[in-house]
Amino acid sequence: MPQLRLALAQVNATVGDLAGNASLVLEWTRKAAEAGAHVAVFPEMVLTGYPVEDLALRASFAEASKKTLAALAVRLADAGCGEVVCYVSYLDRDEVGARDAAAALYRGEVAATQFKHHLPNYGVFDERRYFKPGESLDILRVHGLEVGMVICEDIWQDGGPIAALGQAGVDLVVAPNASPYERNKDDVRLPLVARRAREAGAPLVYVNLVGGQDELVFDGDSLVVGADGTLIARSPQFVEHLTVLDLDLPGGAARTSGAVGEFAVRRRVLSDEVLPAYPAGYPASVAEPLSDEAEVWSALVTCLRDYTHKNGFRSVVLGLSGGIDSAVVAALAVDALGPDAVYGVSMPSVYSSSHSRSDAEELATRTGLHFSVAPIADMVAAFVGPLGLTGLAEENVQARCRGVTLMGLSNQHGHLVLATGNKTELAVGYSTIYGDAVGGFAPIKDVPKTLVWELARWRNAEADKRGETPPIPENSIAKPPSAELRPGQLDTDSLPDYALLDKIVDDYVEGDRGYHDLIAAGYEPELVQQVLRMVDRAEFKRRQYPPGTKVTWKAFGRDRRLPITNKWREG
Amino acid sequence: MPQLRLALAQVNATVGDLAGNASLVLEWTRKAAEAGAHVAVFPEMVLTGYPVEDLALRASFAEASKKTLAALAVRLADAGCGEVVCYVSYLDRDEVGARDAAAALYRGEVAATQFKHHLPNYGVFDERRYFKPGESLDILRVHGLEVGMVICEDIWQDGGPIAALGQAGVDLVVAPNASPYERNKDDVRLPLVARRAREAGAPLVYVNLVGGQDELVFDGDSLVVGADGTLIARSPQFVEHLTVLDLDLPGGAARTSGAVGEFAVRRRVLSDEVLPAYPAGYPASVAEPLSDEAEVWSALVTCLRDYTHKNGFRSVVLGLSGGIDSAVVAALAVDALGPDAVYGVSMPSVYSSSHSRSDAEELATRTGLHFSVAPIADMVAAFVGPLGLTGLAEENVQARCRGVTLMGLSNQHGHLVLATGNKTELAVGYSTIYGDAVGGFAPIKDVPKTLVWELARWRNAEADKRGETPPIPENSIAKPPSAELRPGQLDTDSLPDYALLDKIVDDYVEGDRGYHDLIAAGYEPELVQQVLRMVDRAEFKRRQYPPGTKVTWKAFGRDRRLPITNKWREG
Repeated sequence: MPQLRLALAQVNATVGDLAGNASLVLEWTRKAAEAGAHVAVFPEMVLTGYPVEDLALRASFAEASKKTLAALAVRLADAGCGEVVCYVSYLDRDEVGARDAAAALYRGEVAATQFKHHLPNYGVFDERRYFKPGESLDILRVHGLEVGMVICEDIWQDGGPIAALGQAGVDLVVAPNASPYERNKDDVRLPLVARRAREAGAPLVYVNLVGGQDELVFDGDSLVVGADGTLIARSPQFVEHLTVLDLDLPGGAARTSGAVGEFAVRRRVLSDEVLPAYPAGYPASVAEPLSDEAEVWSALVTCLRDYTHKNGFRSVVLGLSGGIDSAVVAALAVDALGPDAVYGVSMPSVYSSSHSRSDAEELATRTGLHFSVAPIADMVAAFVGPLGLTGLAEENVQARCRGVTLMGLSNQHGHLVLATGNKTELAVGYSTIYGDAVGGFAPIKDVPKTLVWELARWRNAEADKRGETPPIPENSIAKPPSAELRPGQLDTDSLPDYALLDKIVDDYVEGDRGYHDLIAAGYEPELVQQVLRMVDRAEFKRRQYPPGTKVTWKAFGRDRRLPITNKWREG
Repeated sequence: MPQLRLALAQVNATVGDLAGNASLVLEWTRKAAEAGAHVAVFPEMVLTGYPVEDLALRASFAEASKKTLAALAVRLADAGCGEVVCYVSYLDRDEVGARDAAAALYRGEVAATQFKHHLPNYGVFDERRYFKPGESLDILRVHGLEVGMVICEDIWQDGGPIAALGQAGVDLVVAPNASPYERNKDDVRLPLVARRAREAGAPLVYVNLVGGQDELVFDGDSLVVGADGTLIARSPQFVEHLTVLDLDLPGGAARTSGAVGEFAVRRRVLSDEVLPAYPAGYPASVAEPLSDEAEVWSALVTCLRDYTHKNGFRSVVLGLSGGIDSAVVAALAVDALGPDAVYGVSMPSVYSSSHSRSDAEELATRTGLHFSVAPIADMVAAFVGPLGLTGLAEENVQARCRGVTLMGLSNQHGHLVLATGNKTELAVGYSTIYGDAVGGFAPIKDVPKTLVWELARWRNAEADKRGETPPIPENSIAKPPSAELRPGQLDTDSLPDYALLDKIVDDYVEGDRGYHDLIAAGYEPELVQQVLRMVDRAEFKRRQYPPGTKVTWKAFGRDRRLPITNKWREG
């Protein structure tokens, strides 16, 4: 049976770094060539990084992308990789507009170019803003086999290129992707890819990006699925990885050309001879998907690490309150960057409990991060007296003096400041703007409070399993949450129980359910009204909040775009 | 000749306020009915406000919009306005999706409904995210005349509904709009509307929204243009206004129905008899467009006023440095809200010049705003010593202590904080995040520094003309700009001359021109590289900046979406 050796290059590209990304492709194609691969597939927009946002509209950037692609084809050939059919995606631009494009590089040339057809314009995606859709399909004959390609969203929508490839006839489909992580998405991905393989009537090679880009993180989870939908190979999540495998391909697909529906089918022969039988050296490996907690934790660690390093920071600083949120963020930072790059500061005020400092210190001891104490009483007094501040105004000054302290340390020592707010707080506005909300990055901004606790317990249990010290002090997990901005204050003074609150927030924010729908679901009318009011009124705070990793189906930010000035009130 | 009395209701709707907006329509239709109008036209999405953003995706909101529309039809009839054909735009939703819709209300019923066809998805617009396009045209016979309609973008794009109406045959076209203000847009609008009227072969009634919504402000400037493109009537900018006019309409348009191109044409007869000749009581009036400076000033005043009031604030507070930016923002606030609603605070540090306080005091005297002084030396000392801050870290603490002071006063007294940064500063990152960047609204964030000066001179000259005290102290205009964060500091220490800087920023930010293009335009390579680096590196600050009025072709914010993590460097 005809066969091909495929390499799935699941790499971590950086937005805008054309030279760096080109070198990354060269390096990984070299590995693929050394392994004897005939075809190497890289993720969507690997040359530019993804998403490039309005860089797509800049002519100079698109030109540079095209030039880099052409030069890369030559570099690959010069490096002895010219015989590998190398699928490299990039930003193109022609007289019609910008294009999300995939090219096949072969023997020093761009052998084929295809444009993404389905352009997602929902959730975090604005691709109708940037790209014009492609309406041609480039099918290459590689060692006698017909290889078609589609790009990312093209496999998420019914009809279109996949069905057309099925009609035209192909022996194999490659699909470069940049599909951002969200919880449970990997459970959807495999059945979907399987369905598309069946529609195409050919095995499908799905290669996803890995790594963080601002609020998005890509989990990899690259797949190969047979023509019948069977899973053949799966790459591990959240790591760069080269999956090489030998695939038996029966071949013999129809070889029609011309037009199929709205698509112009273009065929080109790169190599016509079927390979003589060779011993399969790379049996397919199927990585086990991570557990839900492990997956979220890895997403948060990966995105925090990449945001820090890709933006040129070597270290981070954060306030340690002794509470669960800052403890989890610190543990994430230590996992992402190592303890030596993490600076935790306890900033007690006159209302701080003794355990707020001791629990923070305990966290530092357990994780090995740098710990210091900066009391804020004098700073607070310098504002409260002269300005005559009382009540909420006085409470907020405490949070803001902590913000000024962290920013001062950041400016002095070059640390990136991490904000420690969670999604529930962000939803109901339970944070002080320019206070605890300061930061360059907010690692858990899309993690609901109840999940913060789950992650803490899971991370500690993992440490136990590995015989390591659990990073998070038991007391930080167990004690009732408090902002400690006035004597004896508890979160439950002004907020419902978090288990219930998270459910309502989830239904309202992610589910976009209205008041009557929520009441019908069994929630108390008064409670629903209270929570919805809080969420609606906090929009102005969310607009000025730092970016942070998206892990849920709908994160605050570009995923949920609501006006600040908005008199609509549910109920 | 057949004739109709038309009313153009240029009103200020509020996003989400269905009940309030419905009452607004009722009130203005009553005025139109009292004036004897046969047809009243309201702006795009008048019932929901515009843009509603992700509210468009919420089923409960769309249902409420539809219900409010049906109830409004009945209310209009009950109020004796049932004979007026009243064009009211709203959010619709059917099995296909959400729709940007216009309805004609008549005798207590929804007589016709049409959906927007062209959905803008560029600049500040994301309409492909929200709406499905309409593909039918509803033409109503009103007193024997065929009246068609199109919505906003439908007149900005070639082809589509306008051309189809021309082919189908209409005697008049009404066009509800929500077209955000930007400089010189009114110069484009008239020729465009004239061209579309000629394409339709009928007079065109263009009714635009007025008022502010977050970063957008609508200038009105509603128009009536004859079938030959002649301007017949024009409403004044930036005010609510009812333009009533008697229009002679020859009638006799073809009355084809069925399909024209992709559009299904539906005709309905509301009243067949041509009106007996009546004396024209409302000759058309043509308002003079404002001068460039007056237009920008009005845009800034309108948007600031609406942001403040629509968000429930009665007063604003801002820092007065004695410099030009805070002086202009204070003058805008006084024009928008009156001097009694404006609180200015001078916050001298040890590096502040004596004129910083005296110029601020002079501004207060001229405008009548509330003035106070809050020295920050003790606050700054409480951070700098204990934290060991020096250099830039120490400079920033000064700006941040001012931020904490303003936020404290806001929390204590309920004022909205205004940030005073201009577009040039925001472009090059010449501001302190959580320092001078704090605020709920940033009135001049889209005004380049050179335009800030121009506006100051213009506003003072206007006052002179009117025999009033010019609000802005001459010294604030004349003195060299300085952040005064260290002894003898001037902006020109770290920035190029503003006249030159504004040109480069404009070419790079608004023009999206790349390095080589800028060099070819004659700028110094080193200077271009310096400015572009500054702009690129300040993206993280802009993300956390308060909203502010868009007045240029491309404002920072949703108009220009760039990644923070971005290694692309021009040059």
